Amino acid sequence: MNHPGPTHHDAPPTPPAWLDQVAWDERGLVPAIAQEVGSNDVLMVAWMNREALLQTWARGQAVYWSRSRQRLWHKGEESGHVQTVHDIRLDCDQDVVLLKVTQQGHEGCGVACHTGRHSCFYLQLDGDDWQAVEPVIVDPEKVYR
Amino acid sequence: MNHPGPTHHDAPPTPPAWLDQVAWDERGLVPAIAQEVGSNDVLMVAWMNREALLQTWARGQAVYWSRSRQRLWHKGEESGHVQTVHDIRLDCDQDVVLLKVTQQGHEGCGVACHTGRHSCFYLQLDGDDWQAVEPVIVDPEKVYR
Repeated sequence: MNHPGPTHHDAPPTPPAWLDQVAWDERGLVPAIAQEVGSNDVLMVAWMNREALLQTWARGQAVYWSRSRQRLWHKGEESGHVQTVHDIRLDCDQDVVLLKVTQQGHEGCGVACHTGRHSCFYLQLDGDDWQAVEPVIVDPEKVYR
Repeated sequence: MNHPGPTHHDAPPTPPAWLDQVAWDERGLVPAIAQEVGSNDVLMVAWMNREALLQTWARGQAVYWSRSRQRLWHKGEESGHVQTVHDIRLDCDQDVVLLKVTQQGHEGCGVACHTGRHSCFYLQLDGDDWQAVEPVIVDPEKVYR
């Protein structure tokens, strides 16, 4: 990466202007894709509100908004599977965020999914049904206690 | 790809059961990511309803739901920049679709973005502002008439 990256910014006292350029939806959210640096694998999609994106930028680690729990979700806070953020992108409509991340996980293999898989996108449409086609790398019972 | 792929299915008379396993949101939509086979670049994100996903599967080309135009949008219908679909994935929450595609475009370089760029994710958060960091490959005026 030949740019300074978004890591370790001091959180500013007032929200920065770039946050206003994101086209937040009617709930104040945008989808955020986590893509693995190197493999370019798409690991997961979650949601962000303004505070989640600001914290992601300030910490240099992915922070999402959990719609089910209605709170900020620092990815890896339970599992230790944090995502180090190298690059923050926005699309042409300014309503989707793309993070380039290093996924921490199990013995060098990043585990993003709560099922213990590398990527959340393990269901493949095969003929006329969805099939799980990616291996479980870690026992989710041992990760999420 | 070592699987038969989703191309050229006959559209069934009744919607297939696998469509019901997608966790459509309250609008009947899910986000769909188009990821380029080979490079693994994330090209774009759009939305799908049931009919869009069914047509994508049946045609083997990406069909989205345009929220702004409130109609099905066969990607490339104007530009010729169609997306051939090799693989359809669903995530663990069953509420995001991932397409593995070949992006048709300009002289071998896939152009997914209406701005004439390879990927829609060309805005990079650099310091405290979004910067366009990907080149315009084709003049959008010549593509979208």
